[in-house]
Amino acid sequence: MTRTVYVNGEYMPETEATVSIFDRGFLFADGVYEVTSVIGGKLLDFDGHAVRLQRSLDELEMKNPISKEDLLEVHRELVRTNEIEEGLVYLQITRGAADRDFAYPGDDVEPTIVLFTQAKPGLANSPKAKEGMKVISIEDQRWGRRDIKTVQLLYPSMGKMAAKAAGADDAWMVEDGHVTEGTSNNAYIVKGNTIVTRQLSNDILHGITRAAVLRFAKEAQMNVEERAFTLQEAQAADEAFITSASTFVMPVVEIDGQAVGTGAPGSVAARLREIYLDESLKTAI
Amino acid sequence: MTRTVYVNGEYMPETEATVSIFDRGFLFADGVYEVTSVIGGKLLDFDGHAVRLQRSLDELEMKNPISKEDLLEVHRELVRTNEIEEGLVYLQITRGAADRDFAYPGDDVEPTIVLFTQAKPGLANSPKAKEGMKVISIEDQRWGRRDIKTVQLLYPSMGKMAAKAAGADDAWMVEDGHVTEGTSNNAYIVKGNTIVTRQLSNDILHGITRAAVLRFAKEAQMNVEERAFTLQEAQAADEAFITSASTFVMPVVEIDGQAVGTGAPGSVAARLREIYLDESLKTAI
Repeated sequence: MTRTVYVNGEYMPETEATVSIFDRGFLFADGVYEVTSVIGGKLLDFDGHAVRLQRSLDELEMKNPISKEDLLEVHRELVRTNEIEEGLVYLQITRGAADRDFAYPGDDVEPTIVLFTQAKPGLANSPKAKEGMKVISIEDQRWGRRDIKTVQLLYPSMGKMAAKAAGADDAWMVEDGHVTEGTSNNAYIVKGNTIVTRQLSNDILHGITRAAVLRFAKEAQMNVEERAFTLQEAQAADEAFITSASTFVMPVVEIDGQAVGTGAPGSVAARLREIYLDESLKTAI
Repeated sequence: MTRTVYVNGEYMPETEATVSIFDRGFLFADGVYEVTSVIGGKLLDFDGHAVRLQRSLDELEMKNPISKEDLLEVHRELVRTNEIEEGLVYLQITRGAADRDFAYPGDDVEPTIVLFTQAKPGLANSPKAKEGMKVISIEDQRWGRRDIKTVQLLYPSMGKMAAKAAGADDAWMVEDGHVTEGTSNNAYIVKGNTIVTRQLSNDILHGITRAAVLRFAKEAQMNVEERAFTLQEAQAADEAFITSASTFVMPVVEIDGQAVGTGAPGSVAARLREIYLDESLKTAI
């Protein structure tokens, strides 16, 4: 099936969806993005993504070409048209097309906005949630502003390939001896009754799912510590897991070939996944 | 005038030149580039750029969609068609278009190749070469593989804007107290009879102009030291300058508001610029 996508105000078949070779997203990675999950044809945590999108744009002094209301309508229209029951809506905004220059173009240049869907049948019931993921560790070589959700994703992409080559599912990135995050997700460990995840800073993405999961964990009377942890601490933990908009909560059962806890998905991750899906679906729109 | 550009084997007007919204250059900054200068309608150091392009592709396990001979012919054809006497040819290769996935697509996906020209009348006789540039310093927040010439250029772009906002021409990036390079150029200082520039590593781009200028400097019996230098050392130097394919050799006369040497362009930079242009033109093709 040919998807319908959205580019700069128009809906069109994906085969016709293009941007100029002068788009700064293409030439300078001068763009930001968001990915919103769809379950039961509804958007999870749309507000959270819209707020973070605005923050990314503000940090880069980039114009927002669309109101939140219109953005929601485009999301919904793409979900409807492409008949997405379970899947994702991807959104990217760049600084627009202008002749190549490191300096930003003038205010007359309009941002580029692109949205498309990806159908992911079985997203909520992923078998990985029962099996658990294997991760390897790699050095975190990304730029210093990981709090801005830019399309500078080559290193995470290289990390994913390194993981695949090692027979693993993903890579956790390590800087100065401490885990920052996964290639496209936040990282957690559980020791005793405490959930540990790195505190917010420019070193990691401020995950929308992270914020929700921590809120639900606290509401469920779990202890949460927001601090950096080492790889050794993670390997010696009772459980490990990740969160992201597209994986929700996903257990990690092996780090660099070493089993975490019993080597099977843990109960805390399973419970948080269940709570997250239940609660998010209540507010899905 | 509408430029003729080159996209995936075809010449076309720039207004029609597009890439898919699924191009990995647009979605993941999964692409590399080169910029070659044109003087008198001829390409400077084409071979050097072709060799570095292949190295960048190899480092990223990316296919090269074009032979060196064909690449040269496309460069020449664009220079001819667009009547470029002085200017640049920009080349970008990405991993191609595929549905969004952090993992690289299969071998059936062909790379995207884009080339376009930029006319820069007066490039060789730039008034800046007589005035000198002012630079500010900023922290180097780029990723760890700056030796690969990728399109992850958002931070250099932000640095250029910070420089403009401060009334300067460019920014020198500083890491662990030492200058790495400019936003799109290599950085040098001169103290006594010695030219100092940072040694090659993953921390800086392996400049094609850098290699040529150092060769010419040694041939002219100048002392060259390849080592890291501090900002304070630069401010206390007799001269400072940059090199890049599009600026050749350009004097720096002010760093963070402090004059370098006399505050006027120095004789070493002037001499190196002259030698570089003379020698490069001899082998231009």
